[in-house]
Amino acid sequence: MPTRDMPALDFWFDFASTYSYPAAMRIAPLAATAGVTVRFRPFLLGPIFKAQGWDTSPFNLYPAKGRYMWRDLERLCADLGLPFRQPEPFPQPSLLAARVALVGLAEGWGEEFCRAVFRTEFSEASRIDDVATIAQLLIPFGAAPDDVLAKARSEPIKARLRDETQAAQQLGVFGAPSFVTADGELFWGNDRLEHAVAWAARAGH
Amino acid sequence: MPTRDMPALDFWFDFASTYSYPAAMRIAPLAATAGVTVRFRPFLLGPIFKAQGWDTSPFNLYPAKGRYMWRDLERLCADLGLPFRQPEPFPQPSLLAARVALVGLAEGWGEEFCRAVFRTEFSEASRIDDVATIAQLLIPFGAAPDDVLAKARSEPIKARLRDETQAAQQLGVFGAPSFVTADGELFWGNDRLEHAVAWAARAGH
Repeated sequence: MPTRDMPALDFWFDFASTYSYPAAMRIAPLAATAGVTVRFRPFLLGPIFKAQGWDTSPFNLYPAKGRYMWRDLERLCADLGLPFRQPEPFPQPSLLAARVALVGLAEGWGEEFCRAVFRTEFSEASRIDDVATIAQLLIPFGAAPDDVLAKARSEPIKARLRDETQAAQQLGVFGAPSFVTADGELFWGNDRLEHAVAWAARAGH
Repeated sequence: MPTRDMPALDFWFDFASTYSYPAAMRIAPLAATAGVTVRFRPFLLGPIFKAQGWDTSPFNLYPAKGRYMWRDLERLCADLGLPFRQPEPFPQPSLLAARVALVGLAEGWGEEFCRAVFRTEFSEASRIDDVATIAQLLIPFGAAPDDVLAKARSEPIKARLRDETQAAQQLGVFGAPSFVTADGELFWGNDRLEHAVAWAARAGH
């Protein structure tokens, strides 16, 4: 959570979103250097895509765009030194991971968990909708997987994720990753991360 | 045209495309610094969008994306020191400007004409489908507007533009601006221009 002393930046992402992977791996050090506090805000793109008339990722609906994205992401990850392997299937159902992340973000291990999910999904090609995979990722945090999974399936967390998705939509979010500054500026895409951090740093002082 | 001594980069753009404006204004000095020769290759996005089932710009079809794009472009142009005004209507019919550009690119004044079209469209909000506007833009090049316009309406130029659009599609181009290196790497978007120039420079040596 942001402190009153530091400018804040909300990082909106869906675990299924390809360009959210490099953004999630890059945002913490970039923001720290700029004196900006980041809030990780997982949400679901599905309902927002549905409102646009899409029943899957636009990268599947538009094959030329999809082919380009995979190649672009591969190049990008190579430049950043991030391991990369194309997830199968794509997009991965991200509901479970998003709910667990909300539990973790309230308990202090959320950000590290988010990075672990992205890493396993995009570099080991594990399925993030697999309960055993998620339980495995929880081990380093000393959280009892059964307790966490029970909380993740509880009504308050389910409602929280729906509310967050609605909040994203109301902020004008139409894709992921997106970044929103305290003064309401929206930035879309991993390639706008530096701009968003710089804007947040300026706006906060 | 590229020389045999310099690596080449094809710059594919549609005059109606918003992010093609900053790309067109930035590409020449970036490429020159990197020792890369640029070929300006105007084409029409319309037929490519139609093949994807769109009858207008996705920025009109998806309002949240459209609102974001205008704000993003405004911020971007401010950062670059480029004047900016939203064209009305959007997208502008770009057929006439593209045909005239093909005439100019064969006669040596094409690149400067392309920049003049983008400047007038995105900073003065003139209509680029207006013959008088295009004729006005031709004056500095010492080309007789009537001759140029007659050539632009000739069968060979019409066919050339259709062929170029088809060539773009075959290269995997699905939006503009796009950049294609001599070894076939595709980069999409103004924010990939630096990557594309760097790739072309590496690939050529």
